[in-house]
Amino acid sequence: MLSREENELITRVGQGTPMGDTLRLYWLPALLSREIPEPDCPPARVRLLGEALVAFRDTNGRIGLIQELCPHRLASLYFGRNEECGLRCVYHGWKFDVDGNCVDMMNEPDDYQFKHKIRTTAYPTCELGGVIWAYMGPADKKPPLPEFAWTQVPQSHRHVTKVIQECNWLQGLEGGLDTSHAPIMHRLITENSTRGGFKPSNPFVAGKAPKLVVDITEYGYQYAGIRPLGDSEMHIRTYQFILPFHQIRPSKSERGHPMDAGHSWVPIDDQMTMVFNWSYSVTDEPLNEEDRLERNLGNGPLHVDQVTFRSKANRSNDYLIDREVQRTESFTGIDGINVQDRAIQEGMGSIVDRSKEHLGPADKAIIQARKLLRQAVKTVQAGGVPGGTRGYQQLRAREAVLRRDADWRAEMTPEMPREAIVQTV
Amino acid sequence: MLSREENELITRVGQGTPMGDTLRLYWLPALLSREIPEPDCPPARVRLLGEALVAFRDTNGRIGLIQELCPHRLASLYFGRNEECGLRCVYHGWKFDVDGNCVDMMNEPDDYQFKHKIRTTAYPTCELGGVIWAYMGPADKKPPLPEFAWTQVPQSHRHVTKVIQECNWLQGLEGGLDTSHAPIMHRLITENSTRGGFKPSNPFVAGKAPKLVVDITEYGYQYAGIRPLGDSEMHIRTYQFILPFHQIRPSKSERGHPMDAGHSWVPIDDQMTMVFNWSYSVTDEPLNEEDRLERNLGNGPLHVDQVTFRSKANRSNDYLIDREVQRTESFTGIDGINVQDRAIQEGMGSIVDRSKEHLGPADKAIIQARKLLRQAVKTVQAGGVPGGTRGYQQLRAREAVLRRDADWRAEMTPEMPREAIVQTV
Amino acid sequence: MLSREENELITRVGQGTPMGDTLRLYWLPALLSREIPEPDCPPARVRLLGEALVAFRDTNGRIGLIQELCPHRLASLYFGRNEECGLRCVYHGWKFDVDGNCVDMMNEPDDYQFKHKIRTTAYPTCELGGVIWAYMGPADKKPPLPEFAWTQVPQSHRHVTKVIQECNWLQGLEGGLDTSHAPIMHRLITENSTRGGFKPSNPFVAGKAPKLVVDITEYGYQYAGIRPLGDSEMHIRTYQFILPFHQIRPSKSERGHPMDAGHSWVPIDDQMTMVFNWSYSVTDEPLNEEDRLERNLGNGPLHVDQVTFRSKANRSNDYLIDREVQRTESFTGIDGINVQDRAIQEGMGSIVDRSKEHLGPADKAIIQARKLLRQAVKTVQAGGVPGGTRGYQQLRAREAVLRRDADWRAEMTPEMPREAIVQTV
Repeated sequence: MLSREENELITRVGQGTPMGDTLRLYWLPALLSREIPEPDCPPARVRLLGEALVAFRDTNGRIGLIQELCPHRLASLYFGRNEECGLRCVYHGWKFDVDGNCVDMMNEPDDYQFKHKIRTTAYPTCELGGVIWAYMGPADKKPPLPEFAWTQVPQSHRHVTKVIQECNWLQGLEGGLDTSHAPIMHRLITENSTRGGFKPSNPFVAGKAPKLVVDITEYGYQYAGIRPLGDSEMHIRTYQFILPFHQIRPSKSERGHPMDAGHSWVPIDDQMTMVFNWSYSVTDEPLNEEDRLERNLGNGPLHVDQVTFRSKANRSNDYLIDREVQRTESFTGIDGINVQDRAIQEGMGSIVDRSKEHLGPADKAIIQARKLLRQAVKTVQAGGVPGGTRGYQQLRAREAVLRRDADWRAEMTPEMPREAIVQTV
Repeated sequence: MLSREENELITRVGQGTPMGDTLRLYWLPALLSREIPEPDCPPARVRLLGEALVAFRDTNGRIGLIQELCPHRLASLYFGRNEECGLRCVYHGWKFDVDGNCVDMMNEPDDYQFKHKIRTTAYPTCELGGVIWAYMGPADKKPPLPEFAWTQVPQSHRHVTKVIQECNWLQGLEGGLDTSHAPIMHRLITENSTRGGFKPSNPFVAGKAPKLVVDITEYGYQYAGIRPLGDSEMHIRTYQFILPFHQIRPSKSERGHPMDAGHSWVPIDDQMTMVFNWSYSVTDEPLNEEDRLERNLGNGPLHVDQVTFRSKANRSNDYLIDREVQRTESFTGIDGINVQDRAIQEGMGSIVDRSKEHLGPADKAIIQARKLLRQAVKTVQAGGVPGGTRGYQQLRAREAVLRRDADWRAEMTPEMPREAIVQTV
Repeated sequence: MLSREENELITRVGQGTPMGDTLRLYWLPALLSREIPEPDCPPARVRLLGEALVAFRDTNGRIGLIQELCPHRLASLYFGRNEECGLRCVYHGWKFDVDGNCVDMMNEPDDYQFKHKIRTTAYPTCELGGVIWAYMGPADKKPPLPEFAWTQVPQSHRHVTKVIQECNWLQGLEGGLDTSHAPIMHRLITENSTRGGFKPSNPFVAGKAPKLVVDITEYGYQYAGIRPLGDSEMHIRTYQFILPFHQIRPSKSERGHPMDAGHSWVPIDDQMTMVFNWSYSVTDEPLNEEDRLERNLGNGPLHVDQVTFRSKANRSNDYLIDREVQRTESFTGIDGINVQDRAIQEGMGSIVDRSKEHLGPADKAIIQARKLLRQAVKTVQAGGVPGGTRGYQQLRAREAVLRRDADWRAEMTPEMPREAIVQTV
């Protein structure tokens, strides 16, 4: 539970808001590489932290991410012509390069010098893991590149999708960090169902509420759910939360291939979120076409319109809930694990009023995440560098059965130095 | 005509508003029984006086009407599982019984005692006449059950429908009380039309503006339109207004079967209304299937979507007005008597600005209704019990031709004691 | 560039706003004559300067333009019956003549005298050029009739259409006055394209940015774009801007027939505009059916729904932009010259923030138009008569190639007395 003021503080992301200022100090996933697949292809609209932008890939393959409206008379550059190393406004022919410089003005004489004084807002970008990332903060505070492990594998081993969620980003992030709902909401109620979700026999479901351990770190936290198994073993599942909105979780493709997977919940504005979903093979074997359909999650082309990135099952159709399926086959009657998440998170309203919650021990990870976000804001307000800008790149998440007395941190996350843990709660 | 302040006072219904506090002292029609037809069926969304609720019928047939959002983390219980005497939130498995008690928390250990402290808002309900009624006020002020005459006949003799109207409830109520528009707006202009409405030969239409008599009572008022007929007779039609928003009128089914009929205009919120339409046979003979189609009124399955309860003819399609029909057959060119009402009432805007009206003698019933509503608010503000909570249950409305010197009150409303009349205007 | 305050001042048009008061001193195009084609036909909704009105043609052919809501109980007269010299409200049968007098009240006794005291808002109208014009200002300030040259030719020689634009009227007007964008945005990029637009060989396109001359007058301004042609000639194109929102430009029909053409950008309210598009043959030969399709402009029945007057290509479908056409055939990839204008002008947002612009010499006409509009407001605030109410009726716009030293004003606009020019900028 937060006060209304705290809730406003950590949810609002516009220019000049405390959380907006904080998020602008990170590399942010802005769009998929395949939205602007080749040099001089049509530009793409991008709305990020409440700012209207347009992305383009120039003749030399360089990526521009500039303010949507042309500084001349505020025409939309979305309608622009991407040609000869710049995006040209179709209204009067002003042309901008990827750095935001005005390089031509068709409506004025050639010798008109005014153009050299015109710049438009242009944000630095980088392209990693099939995603174009943007940095929207002050030049002198740019952090190291967001080289998450999943961005470092070959494209053959990686899969990334995008889906728009109709609520504030924090509702999505909290849902992702909240492992406690997973074996409840995402469970199947018959063993022979072929739908996405956890079968009744899965120890994750069969067990009771796990013991939760949160290791606070500089980058966010490592989070473990530990369930005793028989007399001498335990089942452990770890997750990573990397500030400000990234999650890593252990996963398997539908044919059972081991993967790491995760999401980034990127604010479009205060009321809308772009969720980037990624997964990658943690073995030498690449992903196959079936793996890329994401049938179980509901984030792939079968479930999400690949032009608008809107979920086909959405608020307007009650997420296609099937009450008979809910009665006999799955806990929710909604098809797709992440469709279930969107149904619940969007159903809370645009920005849920956290002052009305009643949290318990099972909500520990959520409580800690809010705490870290508020700390990050405070750090930024004091002129410092918030957590989550370094030290997270190699992190993984894992699921295993260990001996009851095992040193689980050493076995589950060998890539994380023990001294990275600031506090365990 | 009202001042803008008076208009605000009697139209707004949210928690803490004067009219909202007043309405919360009555039993309110909340949904049709058939929306949650059987034990453990899917829950139904209900929006009432601006509050988001969910209704369910539990394993034992008891009815719950609780706050839509789960008190844990505000997930919508609409997606919930109705099972084993409670509605279970699919997010973390918290379960609530019809009284709002939290009876299970799947995300916490079994011995976790916190659940006994958790309650959600639950409103008492009763089921009468095929309708589930709710009481949303303080426990110590609950009025007697709303045993209207129409709720006391067998289901075979009764018909109830529901339709959403896209404007404030008071516009609907005023339209219902305003008998003066009926022979004008609802008239047919050719005798041989088969559409719903009053034919030119109907004395109701053929006559001129009637003399209006309003008998103010404790429950609201009895309202009579009296038209001289020849030298020695008179035509009388009586109506009942029962506070806060119920109407009773004399009616006939389309095959001519005598009925009482009426409406209740229940605020969904300030801008939307759920209209409950009922009718019942006043003889021993039951209603038949044709009677239940309500072709003339436009409230039945032919005119209203039975899932969303939206009128098929609505603002977005100009109520399917047919200008040629308007020219040659009916006064409005709109099909369905109550569709005509909705067209006009919604056309005034969400909340009509009553400070701009120009009322005359023909608007007497409307003026009196507003007065009674303001009195009810004042009574409640002074800590009293508003009118309309008792003394109305047996009331009927009738139409008759009487001798000019008859004691029409005695003949038309024998069930109403004469001393119930506080004042006649 | 304007300050935010100036921007508010010249864009807002509601009752009591400075620009609203100013616009109310002009005859305003309100609807097409063919929207109410004959006596006693159904009425039409009209929204003008933020006021909800209804237009009707009475039994004698007189035109009424009255407040939409009936003064009795605010029912919409759009549903009314147009009969026997008046529009009758269907709710209680109050009837109004074209002057706004209440001439009948069906719900009150015949001898009820109250009706003679009831009037509704009725605006004077005139019908010129296939358009019904309204005057919404004080009776004593009514200007001469808007007898533009295009309204004085026979119907056979004239064509008028209407289209709704989803942004503030000033964005439309500025686009119309801005000749500098035309050879850029509306150009074709291959000579053999059959789409609307200017071919590469057109001197208008082939030339560079022209010299711009703005002759300020009492009615607005004459505006010329002058391009040197060879050693001894020049290409001239003149436009007229008549306050508050009319434009005249030289044109040709698609088969090459010489016409004058233009637009009037009439505010529906602050966020929406009704654009009236007209053209007429400047020879004795009438227009033909093909001329009336306006294929090139995109304002005719092929591009605009003739019931709702909404553009089929619109914001919701990105104006049906075809990126391959944009790459190979036309500058924008959008079909229809005025569809291109709407795409750009609507893309700026409802009311563009002019404080963020960066204007240059090519924007001279726009800068001058804003100046004249602000002057008109000041004149009205000082109790005077704004420009543009007289002296514009015979104006034309022309395109020609003249000797370099010609007296172009005398040859291009013989109908304009030289002394009408107040200043040249």
